[in-house]
Amino acid sequence: MTSFELPAGFRFAGVTCGIKKSGKPDLTLIVGNHRLVASGVYTQNQVIAAPVAICRSLTPSSRIRAVVANSGNANACTGRQGEQDASEMCRKVAALISASEPEVLVMSTGVIGKRLPMDRIDAGITQAVEKLGDGEDDFLAAADAILTTDHSRKADCRVVEIDGQKVRIAAMAKGAGMISPNMATMLAVVMTDAELDPQQSQRILRDVTAKSFNCVSVDGHTSTNDTLLMLSSGDSGVRIDESNEKEFTKALTEICCKLARQLVADGEGANYVMKIRVVGAADDEDAAVIARTIGASPLVKTAIAGADPNWGRIVSAAGYAPAKINPRQTSLKLAGTEIYHNGVPTDFDAAAVSAAMKTNKEVELDLFVGNGPGTAVHWASDLTVAYVRFNSEYTT
Amino acid sequence: MTSFELPAGFRFAGVTCGIKKSGKPDLTLIVGNHRLVASGVYTQNQVIAAPVAICRSLTPSSRIRAVVANSGNANACTGRQGEQDASEMCRKVAALISASEPEVLVMSTGVIGKRLPMDRIDAGITQAVEKLGDGEDDFLAAADAILTTDHSRKADCRVVEIDGQKVRIAAMAKGAGMISPNMATMLAVVMTDAELDPQQSQRILRDVTAKSFNCVSVDGHTSTNDTLLMLSSGDSGVRIDESNEKEFTKALTEICCKLARQLVADGEGANYVMKIRVVGAADDEDAAVIARTIGASPLVKTAIAGADPNWGRIVSAAGYAPAKINPRQTSLKLAGTEIYHNGVPTDFDAAAVSAAMKTNKEVELDLFVGNGPGTAVHWASDLTVAYVRFNSEYTT
Repeated sequence: MTSFELPAGFRFAGVTCGIKKSGKPDLTLIVGNHRLVASGVYTQNQVIAAPVAICRSLTPSSRIRAVVANSGNANACTGRQGEQDASEMCRKVAALISASEPEVLVMSTGVIGKRLPMDRIDAGITQAVEKLGDGEDDFLAAADAILTTDHSRKADCRVVEIDGQKVRIAAMAKGAGMISPNMATMLAVVMTDAELDPQQSQRILRDVTAKSFNCVSVDGHTSTNDTLLMLSSGDSGVRIDESNEKEFTKALTEICCKLARQLVADGEGANYVMKIRVVGAADDEDAAVIARTIGASPLVKTAIAGADPNWGRIVSAAGYAPAKINPRQTSLKLAGTEIYHNGVPTDFDAAAVSAAMKTNKEVELDLFVGNGPGTAVHWASDLTVAYVRFNSEYTT
Repeated sequence: MTSFELPAGFRFAGVTCGIKKSGKPDLTLIVGNHRLVASGVYTQNQVIAAPVAICRSLTPSSRIRAVVANSGNANACTGRQGEQDASEMCRKVAALISASEPEVLVMSTGVIGKRLPMDRIDAGITQAVEKLGDGEDDFLAAADAILTTDHSRKADCRVVEIDGQKVRIAAMAKGAGMISPNMATMLAVVMTDAELDPQQSQRILRDVTAKSFNCVSVDGHTSTNDTLLMLSSGDSGVRIDESNEKEFTKALTEICCKLARQLVADGEGANYVMKIRVVGAADDEDAAVIARTIGASPLVKTAIAGADPNWGRIVSAAGYAPAKINPRQTSLKLAGTEIYHNGVPTDFDAAAVSAAMKTNKEVELDLFVGNGPGTAVHWASDLTVAYVRFNSEYTT
């Protein structure tokens, strides 16, 4: 984060209310100074958490006043009680900021299948409303309180000049495990003071998601809680329309891609991140499927963890992807060196390629699968001993 | 293997010819005393090894004389040279047993992308032909020489009485990594002295595969070399027809299921095996997709490795499977205890369930996903630190 100009029209708070045993911050509140336009994209998992059901029913909207989020408990697989608890969170916030219940959105992340500690959350909401502010510290406290197993904060903001005026975009995200977003990622909120209408906001958000959060994976496990919200206050005075939408979308895509890459780099146990570029597929969708399949292969992920130029695993993963490749026109560059050309291995120096793989935390895989126009880029974490250790010892 | 009666009409050999650096056996030869009926099912990977292309073009057939197989080198991604080398293996065997090239099938397994050491293979084939025999030792030597990273031999045989006469079935398989068969598994050969015609043999083999080898996974990575062959000599004098096919198929399914489960139990780094039973899906295919998705989730696999009753991971994996479930009618039993009932967690004793998970190397997951008639069973290995260690240090 270089410049730190937050979008106008928002206040933030992040507090500790005791949901997490660790004593780390666990409740975030974002409040608009007036009604906000809000859009959202959500998990494609058929098992959805209670807060996702509420957000889905309320967005897109032009009358959202606040978003409340807790970490440490996902409020997923909690039945009717979970739905009542999620509604209660919205009601409580609404009462304290003079809004109505359907003007408040809610997000939860953490352990699945346990009831929320509602007394603590109630107290936390009261505390958060008192602490609301529009400073950098307030924003960062809010960004910190949505984290779970993340090692580092995922927040960013930027200023773009549109029609000669400043438009500000800020975003926060969390995510380290159960990351294989399908239409959205774990939890993320993008805020801007650009002026958007609800349908337009929804359309732009969906397009940007496809190029950012939906292009990353840690473990291929699509969560029950994935939620990405975009809130716009309009306080910059800049109305986004056909003349400037491209510019706005470009800035939004950049900030979302940056956060999405941060999710992968901070993936549970992750050491290296693969940047998988697929070229020559029948269309972009096929290319994305191939890239995602490679990024999900445990054999590819462990090879990358060991800086092992074991290209056979990469080519064979592409081969079992549910999208067509041309094996006789398949070539692969690994960390910049072509090691497989039109279906035949080149005479490459394995030790040199292994050394090249270790020079950068982002390892580039460039796969050519034919003559088609389809391309895609996907970021995936490697699979390490630390990932297995961490996930074998989670709840018990 | 309780009784050890091998099917009549076959001779076997397993020798060491120096493909593997370890000095372990690496060349297998199976020869029919006369022409055999042969059928095969093969990998669905788009990148197929040279020997798979040859077997595919030659089966089903009523004139197969031999199968030659090597371990230590997959002859995959080796271009035209690889095709020539695979053909050369067939030609060499044919010359020594007075057959023609298209009467010999070939299989390879091991490292991808390296040329076969043809001088060693040539010498190995000569040695194997000299050693051919029809004893138990010969059969087991043949079964051992197709293994790669396997810890234990995968071989079985049984005798069924059909029409008052003995029919014998024997089978061998290998597989430990890159196991997610799709229509077939790594390498396996089933032999019988029942009398079958080629189309019938092919049909029965395909049906049995769907219920055995296609129901297991280690790492979700479909290999380039998966091959399952069935060879029948007819020497029992029992002709398989409509009246007795059910009986024969039942015995064949049992032997294939046993070997398939052995593949998973011996999966790279595997400690526990999950037996995932899905009930109540729209149809059997949907049930199989759900079971396979659960078995492929790194989060589920690590939870099982840690004997952690982290059921949220199992339910959410079912939720992102590309097949419909009814979240409000979803229930789960883990190691015999119901821990999730119609979308709500039960009040179960986590320590007791964890202890139950540790009592047996096969952990039972019973998932109910609705009221449909579809059911499936899938076996998958867990994901351990040993798997990651092993696969991070493979080629370099």
